[in-house]
Formats: sequence, C-alpha cells, structure tokens
Amino acid sequence: MQHFASDNYAGICPEALAALLAANDGHVRSYGDDEWTLRVADRLRELFETDCDVYFVFNGTAANSLALAALCQPYHSVICHQLAHVDTDECGAPQFFSNGATLLAVSGEQGKLTPEAIVEVVTRRSDIHYPKPKVVTLTQATEVGSVYRPDELQAIANTARAYGLRVHMDGARFANAVASLGLSPAEVSWRAGVDVLCFGGTKMGLPVGEAVVFFDRKLSDDFSYRCKQAGQLASKMRFLSAPWLGILENGAWLRHAAHANAMARRLAAGLAEGTGLPALFPVQANGVFVRLPGRIEAGLRARGWLFYNFIAAGGARFMCGWDTAPETVDRLLADIRELAAESA
Amino acid sequence: MQHFASDNYAGICPEALAALLAANDGHVRSYGDDEWTLRVADRLRELFETDCDVYFVFNGTAANSLALAALCQPYHSVICHQLAHVDTDECGAPQFFSNGATLLAVSGEQGKLTPEAIVEVVTRRSDIHYPKPKVVTLTQATEVGSVYRPDELQAIANTARAYGLRVHMDGARFANAVASLGLSPAEVSWRAGVDVLCFGGTKMGLPVGEAVVFFDRKLSDDFSYRCKQAGQLASKMRFLSAPWLGILENGAWLRHAAHANAMARRLAAGLAEGTGLPALFPVQANGVFVRLPGRIEAGLRARGWLFYNFIAAGGARFMCGWDTAPETVDRLLADIRELAAESA
Amino acid sequence: MQHFASDNYAGICPEALAALLAANDGHVRSYGDDEWTLRVADRLRELFETDCDVYFVFNGTAANSLALAALCQPYHSVICHQLAHVDTDECGAPQFFSNGATLLAVSGEQGKLTPEAIVEVVTRRSDIHYPKPKVVTLTQATEVGSVYRPDELQAIANTARAYGLRVHMDGARFANAVASLGLSPAEVSWRAGVDVLCFGGTKMGLPVGEAVVFFDRKLSDDFSYRCKQAGQLASKMRFLSAPWLGILENGAWLRHAAHANAMARRLAAGLAEGTGLPALFPVQANGVFVRLPGRIEAGLRARGWLFYNFIAAGGARFMCGWDTAPETVDRLLADIRELAAESA
Amino acid sequence: MQHFASDNYAGICPEALAALLAANDGHVRSYGDDEWTLRVADRLRELFETDCDVYFVFNGTAANSLALAALCQPYHSVICHQLAHVDTDECGAPQFFSNGATLLAVSGEQGKLTPEAIVEVVTRRSDIHYPKPKVVTLTQATEVGSVYRPDELQAIANTARAYGLRVHMDGARFANAVASLGLSPAEVSWRAGVDVLCFGGTKMGLPVGEAVVFFDRKLSDDFSYRCKQAGQLASKMRFLSAPWLGILENGAWLRHAAHANAMARRLAAGLAEGTGLPALFPVQANGVFVRLPGRIEAGLRARGWLFYNFIAAGGARFMCGWDTAPETVDRLLADIRELAAESA
Repeated sequence: MQHFASDNYAGICPEALAALLAANDGHVRSYGDDEWTLRVADRLRELFETDCDVYFVFNGTAANSLALAALCQPYHSVICHQLAHVDTDECGAPQFFSNGATLLAVSGEQGKLTPEAIVEVVTRRSDIHYPKPKVVTLTQATEVGSVYRPDELQAIANTARAYGLRVHMDGARFANAVASLGLSPAEVSWRAGVDVLCFGGTKMGLPVGEAVVFFDRKLSDDFSYRCKQAGQLASKMRFLSAPWLGILENGAWLRHAAHANAMARRLAAGLAEGTGLPALFPVQANGVFVRLPGRIEAGLRARGWLFYNFIAAGGARFMCGWDTAPETVDRLLADIRELAAESA
Repeated sequence: MQHFASDNYAGICPEALAALLAANDGHVRSYGDDEWTLRVADRLRELFETDCDVYFVFNGTAANSLALAALCQPYHSVICHQLAHVDTDECGAPQFFSNGATLLAVSGEQGKLTPEAIVEVVTRRSDIHYPKPKVVTLTQATEVGSVYRPDELQAIANTARAYGLRVHMDGARFANAVASLGLSPAEVSWRAGVDVLCFGGTKMGLPVGEAVVFFDRKLSDDFSYRCKQAGQLASKMRFLSAPWLGILENGAWLRHAAHANAMARRLAAGLAEGTGLPALFPVQANGVFVRLPGRIEAGLRARGWLFYNFIAAGGARFMCGWDTAPETVDRLLADIRELAAESA
Repeated sequence: MQHFASDNYAGICPEALAALLAANDGHVRSYGDDEWTLRVADRLRELFETDCDVYFVFNGTAANSLALAALCQPYHSVICHQLAHVDTDECGAPQFFSNGATLLAVSGEQGKLTPEAIVEVVTRRSDIHYPKPKVVTLTQATEVGSVYRPDELQAIANTARAYGLRVHMDGARFANAVASLGLSPAEVSWRAGVDVLCFGGTKMGLPVGEAVVFFDRKLSDDFSYRCKQAGQLASKMRFLSAPWLGILENGAWLRHAAHANAMARRLAAGLAEGTGLPALFPVQANGVFVRLPGRIEAGLRARGWLFYNFIAAGGARFMCGWDTAPETVDRLLADIRELAAESA
Repeated sequence: MQHFASDNYAGICPEALAALLAANDGHVRSYGDDEWTLRVADRLRELFETDCDVYFVFNGTAANSLALAALCQPYHSVICHQLAHVDTDECGAPQFFSNGATLLAVSGEQGKLTPEAIVEVVTRRSDIHYPKPKVVTLTQATEVGSVYRPDELQAIANTARAYGLRVHMDGARFANAVASLGLSPAEVSWRAGVDVLCFGGTKMGLPVGEAVVFFDRKLSDDFSYRCKQAGQLASKMRFLSAPWLGILENGAWLRHAAHANAMARRLAAGLAEGTGLPALFPVQANGVFVRLPGRIEAGLRARGWLFYNFIAAGGARFMCGWDTAPETVDRLLADIRELAAESA
C-alpha cells in the first residue's frame, strides 16, 4: 500500500537501481576516488552549467548542517523561515555541526523568506551579545509545497549580499522546484544568487545520499576534510554516487519530480472539486496541505492511510513520491469523499 | 582487476544485494520504523545471545565516534593503541563528535593494548589539567591483522572496570576476528567485557552501513537522538538494514570473513615459502603486512597493483576482501616472486 | 556620574575589596587549592544550609553555560523564558558549551515560566527529530525585575521532575531576589526544587566571578575538569574567591542587594507619583521598566544618562546597583519630571 | 613562605594593584567599552610598535584556545612541541574551543620547535583521513625555561608560511623572554613572523587576565563575538584591563620579568656551584630544571618546599616569580646543600 506520509517512503527508482547494480563490478578505489564519482560530479557541473564543487554525503541533515557550518562560525547566526526543516526537524544538527551557531527563525507567507524579513532580523541588533547574522538559508521547494521564483530568490540574494550574508539553499526537493518552474537548474540556483545548494537525492529515488554543490568554490576550502571528520565520507562511495548517474541520465530526475508534482496537483484538484477542502498553500511542488475535519482525519487513519499532521503549517500534509500512482491518489480522494459524506 | 589496498575496494556481496533488492518493495516507513530494521535488530540480538540495543549508522567513522561520545564527556580521555584507526585515520572525528575528548595512544605488541599499558596511562596523572580517562577502545581484529583472544579481552576489561573505564570495541573487522577464533560473537564481545561494539558491515560486503551494538543498555540512553543530530539517521533506513539481514541469514557474514582470512593466510604462506618475506605480524585475520624491498614495491606498483604502505606499522599492507579470488593472490605472489628474482 | 544602564557599571564594594587586598599576601597555591577558596566554599555551604558543591568561574555566561552543559547532552533541549538572558544575550554560549543543545523559549507573564508553559513544550513533540527536553532554566530575579515566590518555584520544579527535567537557576541577581522575599537562600533555591544555582557575584559588588552551586551533588561529577577545559579555572583563584568571603561576612551581600532593591522602589515610586509613568512589571528587585515617551527618552540621553532600551520587554530599563545613591535616583526623577513638563 | 611550584603562586604586584584601585571609581561602562580598556589597548599598540588588535580574556587556557580556534577549523591540526602547555596541561581545551582540532606534538631540543620538525609533520601525510596542518604554536619562553631567538622564530615562521601555516605564540612568559633577550617586544613577535600572541598577564603580577594580540588583523574578524560566546568577555572589564596599565607604565612588566629571570639564574648558579647539580636546560627565563636525587627531593618536601616534578622534562621544576626574594633562593639552596651533604 502506498502512503502520503513522506516522499521518503518510496524506494529506489529503476534508473538509480540500474546504475547501482552496474557499479557493483569488482574492486574499485574507495572514498570517492573512483570513476563513478568523478563522472557524476562532471555530470552535475554540466547540469548546472558552471564549474561548481560537488560532494556526496549520506543524508540531508548532514548536507545542510555541513554546508551551513562551512559558511559560518559558532558565534554567527543563520536566518531561516520558521518552518524550515533545519530548525524544526533536525534535532539541533546545524548547531551541533557548527558548534553553536544560532538559527534565527522568521515568519513569512507560503513558507517563504522575504527580503524585508531578512532586513528586519539583520538590523535588529548589532551588539556582541547577539550572534552575528552570516547566512540566509532557503528551502526550495518550501516545506509547504510552494516554490520560490527566480526573481524572489534574486531579491533575497541581493539583500543577503548587501548585508554580507551568504545564501544556502536546502534543496531536499530541488528537483520538484525545477520541474515546477520549468526552468534550468542554474536559473533556480546560482544565477539567482545561491552560493551553496544541498541537492536532495533520496526523495528523487536514490537509496541514500545527497549532493552538496558549491557554486562559490572559495567556500568549499577543505570541505572534504570537513565531511571526513563529520562521518560523512563513504568508503564505498560508488554506491552513493552511481545512482545519481542513473537519475541524471536521460532526465529521469526531472521526470520523476514532474510526476510527483502532477500527483500533488491531482490530489489538490480532487480535494477542491470533490470535497470543497482547499489547499492551504499553492500546490507548486509535490505536497498538499489541507485542514481536515477531525472525523475525516480519524477516518483516514482508521482505513490505514499514513500521513503527517504538520501542526505548525496548520493542517494535514500529503506528500507524493516519484512512484505515487494515480490510483493511489484516487483511492485517497474516494476515501475522503466517503468520509466527508458520512460526516455531513 | 582485484587489489589489496583495502577490503573496502570490494563491492556488495550477493546475499546483501539480494536482501537490498527484496527490500525495494513499495512504500515503507522511514527512519528505521520498518520491518526490515526491526528484524535485523532482533537477528543481531539472537546472534549475540543477549538483549542488546542496536543502531545502524552510515560508516565506521561515525559508528566509533558516536559510541565514544556516548561513553565520555569532552574533558575525558579515551585510551587507544597508537595504530588505532580512530587515532590515525579519522581526521579527528572522535574529538569532533565528543566536542574535545582526548585520545591517549599507547604502544603495544601486535597492535594490541595490554592491561599494563592501560594502568600506566590511567595512573600517570590525576590532576584536572589532564583529561580524565574514561574509556578503553580496542580494535578487533587489530589494525595489523592480529586478533585478541577472549582471555586477553577479559584481562583488559577487568583492568578497565577496576579504574572505572568503559570498554569500546572497534569491530570494523569483527567478523574476521570471530571467524579466526572459531568462537561465538558473544564470547568475543560482551562475555569478555565489551560494553559497546561497532560491528562493521561495509567490509563484510554491505554497500554502506555499520551497526552500533550496546551490550550495556544503560549506555544507549537517547542514542537515537544522538544519531539523528549527528546526521546518522537514514531516512530510507531499510536500505541500510536489509542488507544486514542478507548476510546474517545462513551465516554468509562468517563464510565471507573466513574466506578473506584464508586468502590472507594463502598470501602469507606464499610469501614465506616463495620469497622468504616474513609477515610482520601474526596473520590471524584478513591482512598481511610485510617489509617489501624498494624494488619489489616499485615493481608491483608498476604492474598496477594497488596497496597501502602502512608506515607506522613498518611495511606494506595487503588486505583481502570477501571476494578476493585465490587466483588474485596467486598472481600477486607470482609477480612478487618474479620481482624478487629480478632483484636478486 | 552614576548610571542606570546596568548593575555591572558599579565597581567593587568595600567588603569585597578589603578581602581581595587581604588575600594578596605572599605565595598561595593556585587553581583553587588555597585557604580562601576552601573557606568561601564552606561559607556558602553554611549560607545554603546544605552540603552543596561549589565552583568559582569568571562570569555569568560561563557559569550558566557550564551548568547547563552539565545537565544535558547536545541533542537535548533547555526550556527557558523568552526573555531569559541565556537566550537573548549570550551570543549562543549555551549552545557552544553544550555543543548544540537547543533553547526552547516560551512566553510568560512578568518574565516568569509557569508549569503550564513547561508542560506545553514538553508534550508538544516526542519524536527524535526534535531535541528532547532535559532542563528547565529560571532566572531569579527575572530579567524584568520580578521575583519567583518559593511556591512558584516549587510548582515549576514539581512539573520538571514529573517530566524528568532538571532545574537550573540563573541567579545573576539571586541576592536581590533573596533580599526581596525576606527568606533564606535555601528556601529560594534547593528547598524549592532547584538542582543547580548560578549565584551571581559581579552584580553584588565583586570585581569578577560567579559561583556555580550544585545542590544535587551527583550532577557535579568531574565538573572541575569541565571548568578547566572550558577556560574557567583561575590560576590565582584566591582573587576570585576571597572577595566572596568579604561580602558573605556580616551579610554585606544581602545589605547591598536590599539597598539596590530600595533604590529601584524609590525610582518606581517617584515615577508613579511625579510623572504618572507606571512600572511595566512589579518592582520586586533592582530594576524598573517603564515605557518612556520618545521625547523624554531622548531628553534623558541628551542629559547624559545611560540606560538600555529593552525592546523585547517593551520599555526602558533602569537598573540600580549596590552603590546607587538616593541622590542619583532623585536627579533622574527630577530630569524626567522636567522633561515631562516640557513635553506637556 | 615563598615557593617555587609556579610563578602563579605570586600575588598582585604593586603597580597592578594601584591601577586596579584607581579604576575602582564609580560607574563605568561594561564589557570593555571603557576608558581603561581603550587606553591599555593603545598602550599595547605602542609597546608593539604596530596597529595590532587586542583582546583581554580571563586566563591562558582561554587565550591560547580562542586564538588557535580563530586560526583553524575542527578538521585542521596544530603543530606544537611535545612539552607545550596547550597539549599537556589544558585538559583538551584547544580541542574543545575549536570543536575538534588536533594537536600534533613533535620533539625538539630545549623545548623548542624547529623548521625541520615542522616540515616532517607537514609532509608526513596529505590524505583527508588526517587533519590538515594549519597552525604552528610556539611557547616563548618555552616550558623548560629556554628562549627562542628572533632568528629561530623567523626560520620557523618562514617554514610555516611556505606550507600555508599560521604562527601562534603562547606567551604566558613572553615578558621573561623579552627581558632575557634584551630586545623589543616587536622583534620577538611580529617582526619575527608571529601572527597572534597570547601575552600572559597573570605571571607578570596581574590578579587575572591575559591579552590576545593579533598582529595580522584579518585573523581577528569577529573575535569579540568569539570571546563573548566562549564566556571570556568580562562585564567589569576595567578590572582586567586597568592592571595592565599599571604594569605597562614605567616598564614594571619588564623589571619584574628581569627580576624573576635573575632569581632563576641565581638559583641555577647556586646549584651548579654548591651542589654540582646542573640545570637540564639553558636558564634563559625564570625556571630552573634539575634532576634531584630522590633523597634530596624528599628532604625538600619534608621541609615544606613546594615545587613540581615535571616528569616529561626529566626533573624537578623551580619557577621564580616577580616577587621571589633572593633570600628565598638562598634558603632553598642552603636546604639543598644540607640535604646533599647528608646524602653524601
């Protein structure tokens, strides 16, 4: 049975699996000094149309935390949206990896930061009793399924630059954002002012692993040492990197993301039409948020559906994965309609 | 072409791969709350014949560092052998994860710690200007391919207890040690006084991942939070855990380790007989160390062989993996013999 | 000219100075192994009527951060009031010393935590993606000049115990609280459930230094090592400890605190009578908070008065020190009255 | 009774005390924003004949650790002499403040590092499994009472530069070195290639406090935040800074250091003449090291003398302070002579 709890409930996509199997061929140098890893890094440079530095780590917690640690010191602060995963769901990982940097969470519509909110935080205090802002972190697509447009990103990046801040992008669902906008990865990242992108692999169908992409290569000084010390250097690196090759070739990554986005739109449309339950946020990526009446929520759970209640966002969260079937969406919709009818 | 540089040059063994593929089946709860992970943890409890706590992390650096951090505070110290991987090859990871704990390295024959060496360190100083010893860490099999016998472990553990120290075992090659001794895993770990074992998976044929096994369950308090914060909680945990199931069933883990050990003995025997080059240490696990004449070493490299020069151990290191073929060993031996003949 | 910016603008009180001078007598063992330090520790045990563990550190940032670090691990969280100094004015020190523990700030009237607020935070989430609550920290007197009564403290401590949390008290102005309540130090600390108290020395008239007092002695295990490693062990400790002796003898500490409190009440009374400006919070310790009309604030600054604008608390803050003269209060009041008259 | 255990057994020198008392005058801005602190910083810039950045912290542990943390990242290493205080007597403080940087200790005659030893460490390994060298730290005067000449410092600094390393000087006894060499402070520090100096105040007669002097001002970026977060920003800063003014004026700092040095030479001369016990190291600063026969050592302790046994240096350590009286030296010598005669 498929679920909507998280896009990480999905398994390995066929393209990633094929590449993983292909890479399982005899003895290969360890720690990333292998053909697969070199090729994927090159492939990512082509994808982003720039000579970026690429590192592969095990998960998103580490990717974001290591990248942020590379951008600031313990006595600095990182400005984030109050729904940002780094602040709400990493158990203090950014603070651990950076040895004490502070997250300054601000509010913003649709899960998005704004230049105004950043200015407000940066100018609030300037005394040494308060950690000095040094980084802005954005989530693209956001935690509530919306997507920053390039002009929004650029405005944020311009504000960041004006105050001496670096721009980090948590791209756990970067693929969904790119698919949604129909733009090139470059336009949605470095051309819009992003310094470092954590490009999510797991939610795109990899078994394990994310890529940290430094567009400003001065920032990646000794980053491989940082990864090693922090327990994020895979010995059999090929099994982290080769699956990337699988999804990057023939655009599988983008197709899967587009599919997940389409499933979210299908769900949102069905909800609006069939039940009158409006999505709480624009459905621009692969998630749908909706305020479910208590009896409907309970009924869904009784029927075995798994999904999260994202209290801070104000409702139930339904995430679609690369493999979410239209039939699954339709079954969920049918169940909701039935429960709504019973409630009425 | 196969090599002897490291046992992590080998790929995924068939049993692990089969389990990984079997686990790639539809939607599954993330972060370890899945059937595969639960089953493997149970299976490990059976294997160790005790109700231990089991956690799966991404690599050995993290496994050892997290375990050590759980056993001490930043102002404590950890006694290790001077060839211990945690001290020589983790880029300061134990210090990073523990926020400053000190490794106190001591010498010892055959890469082994002794009760005497531990007593010497513990009693050396007792002032607060020196980090207080709190943990002993052992590597089993050792970095130089020898293996601690249970009585040696017990003697160390007794000494540790007498001084209030905990006992950690770096078991990156625990399987090789078990296979070598022909004893049960329990006899080589908790029954001999080990509190926490980092049970290596990668070198046994897994794509990624190690298990941290707490025999003293009081020590694992909130350890899952520690893993999460440190970027060591896999979202698609099943792909870390299921391969363990594959190698634990039908004893594949032990067969593979025994095979690797046999290949090391074959190599050592061939070296002794054919070239007169004696192994520097008892060949009890899957590594052979030998002082190669410069021309032979250069000749091997010229012929494409990859292997490490383990300077601190005094010679070249040849590691055998779960997949090392007898023919590979024989070809290496033939090359060495040829080169020795040329040199003569 | 005296000011109201902070009670740390005041210098060394005569009693502390006399003791410091008396301690400057020839060669004395360093690092706290001296007569002065032993005597002060004993004197504090008498003062608190219990066999507590006492440590002297350099400042309040360190005292609070080290104490909190002793009570939790990096993946834990500490519940505090949103105006708590540890959260708003320590530049991330608690996170640095603990290597990543999270402060969870909650609101509450008069700068006080409540059992209800604590329960709300503790029960909000229980998943491992969120740092597990382990400590409650209170400020006594609070940041806004109010004081917890023993029954309030006990209720908080009872709630904390019920959820497995430890209770830490930031007592930068503990003396002011004790003087305000007219109770014994024990009643305001351990008898009301406090595990660890950071007893402020600087604001009581010491040149430098605070005391960390562990009422639950199990919590102070190896705390001297923690202080040493964190750069908080004074070599010439006598100059930190002896001044404590000066203020503890003959009750100088309490007299000075009572005087500062009286000056705050004088100021508050004068404001209420002469200008109609009400104090924003109960004036129970040595601070007065008031919402000053812009022209009055500007006028005061133009006349050379130094005071803080405590934006988060909603107004200007006037702190009285151990040495604040009644004449200084009266001059300030006169200036405010004049400025108010001009504004009218 | 005076002792030779440590130069931190001495109290506050008259010049420092006078300045401290003078600074105890009414209300003064806190956290270093005061006249005294500004003046001392200027005075230090004059003393060093360069526009350096100056920070005052509480003790040497913090001074050295904060400075090293500013020069490297957690995955870097710091090359030090094996007798360096940062490695042997700080309970892991550099590792704590830097969140994991590794100290690489090397041997060297007379407690001194050499260019050769540095090259050996730097070139030993270059893989990411080993922390990358980034800093060289020297102790001036050394832990065994010798002193680096400017040409020795320059040679080390040149080597450091050639390998991209920064140069830190632990100057707990910098004054003794300057007095010994008869050179200007500039010649012994930045002109010889030192980037950051921790200038010891306590051993020169201050009650508490050291100065961190950045000659390369780019390295001190946001250092005040680092101090604040690490609990090293004094609220009543004037009591840390003013005493510096006292000893810097009229050259008291240098006179006291010269006196301590002279007492050490007096002791060494007396030992050589009267007892035939040679100093183990050149007596260039304020310490004398000598291998005492067991009965003499025991006899001295029985007569109440306090001194350390510096096992790693190979003998007993006798330190002279700013206040060590010639009579004290002579009494010690007389006791040693008596004990030697009894033993004979």
